[in-house]
Amino acid sequence: MVSDKTIARLSLYRRLLKVLEGEGVRSVFSQQLATMAGGTAAQLRRDLMEVGYSGTPNNGYEVARLADSIRDFLDVPGGQSVVLVGVGNLGKALLSYFATRRSSLQVVAAFDSDPYKVNRVIHGCRCYPMDSLSEVLKGQTATVAVIAVPAAGAQGVAEALTRAGVRGILNFAPVRLRVSPNVYVEDIDMTVALEKVAYFGRPIAGRTRKEPPA
Amino acid sequence: MVSDKTIARLSLYRRLLKVLEGEGVRSVFSQQLATMAGGTAAQLRRDLMEVGYSGTPNNGYEVARLADSIRDFLDVPGGQSVVLVGVGNLGKALLSYFATRRSSLQVVAAFDSDPYKVNRVIHGCRCYPMDSLSEVLKGQTATVAVIAVPAAGAQGVAEALTRAGVRGILNFAPVRLRVSPNVYVEDIDMTVALEKVAYFGRPIAGRTRKEPPA
Repeated sequence: MVSDKTIARLSLYRRLLKVLEGEGVRSVFSQQLATMAGGTAAQLRRDLMEVGYSGTPNNGYEVARLADSIRDFLDVPGGQSVVLVGVGNLGKALLSYFATRRSSLQVVAAFDSDPYKVNRVIHGCRCYPMDSLSEVLKGQTATVAVIAVPAAGAQGVAEALTRAGVRGILNFAPVRLRVSPNVYVEDIDMTVALEKVAYFGRPIAGRTRKEPPA
Repeated sequence: MVSDKTIARLSLYRRLLKVLEGEGVRSVFSQQLATMAGGTAAQLRRDLMEVGYSGTPNNGYEVARLADSIRDFLDVPGGQSVVLVGVGNLGKALLSYFATRRSSLQVVAAFDSDPYKVNRVIHGCRCYPMDSLSEVLKGQTATVAVIAVPAAGAQGVAEALTRAGVRGILNFAPVRLRVSPNVYVEDIDMTVALEKVAYFGRPIAGRTRKEPPA
């Protein structure tokens, strides 16, 4: 079983390779790519063993071919459908963000309990009533979901999603979801992240001297 | 020095307390609040020692007063100004998200190099040209910044921000920023997060039987 840290790094390598490809770079040494990703060459080589890229690292990796190898490893052929639950302010922002990314991941349906949002198309994605979730998911092959509802509703949404066959959840609600062990959850808490940065980045009291703070 | 994990938990407790307050709950036991936050009562009590809440946990914490204690600990009186760099699709989504949050953190200026975006007001926030960053920051007291530029530009932006006095950075660019040790950086990589969820949540090949997968 490949670890989630390896998957995260492969995702990052792939994106860095796409940047290099866009700049016309044809080959890259493991040390270069590892530095770009903030890791070591040894770790990069271990990660790429999972992907099964057969290259000669002495001459560097072929940028385009390595990106393709990672794509073949990470992506499901034909792409994957994603649903988003909760079209509040954050949900709308996420729809807008994901809508413009070229990716094998496509947000195919959004859900909200607000009747005003239902049946509208928001950033190219149709919004369905929350109680139609299992019905709509029956007609989709989506096994990936994004939860962007308030904390109080998130557990119920996670349960409805997993009953409907979802096996991967990106959770923006500030609660720890209880799901069965075969469902993968990744949490992103934007408010906590910003509050951490604000706390450690607060102005220094009485900073009147010219020396930088210790 | 309080750890960043403690700060993250305090931020979460505060938000959970606000939810309880909204529901009319007046007091909460450490075990209850800890469970809501996905932690233990012992850890909660250790975290709250930092805040200096003087209560009698035997009768539970007073919800409103504990929230106020955490606020006094986390927030700077009068609030903190935040700047956002990179008003692309993600940056716009973040402006929209942060604009509607009631918080002591206020996004006061955005920056972009695209002349079409400059001098416009986007989700209530004025967008300035990138090369006016140090000048605009001189007139602000912002020490907190959000970076939402593409990978290639992020390091240069981080350097310009820290030269202008920024000490906390929430970084959405998929690069490891090199900054001086007195600058705090928190990374959020939305694409990596979604790709991880998609990988571990991919449909199970040959899933034709009715039994759930192991």
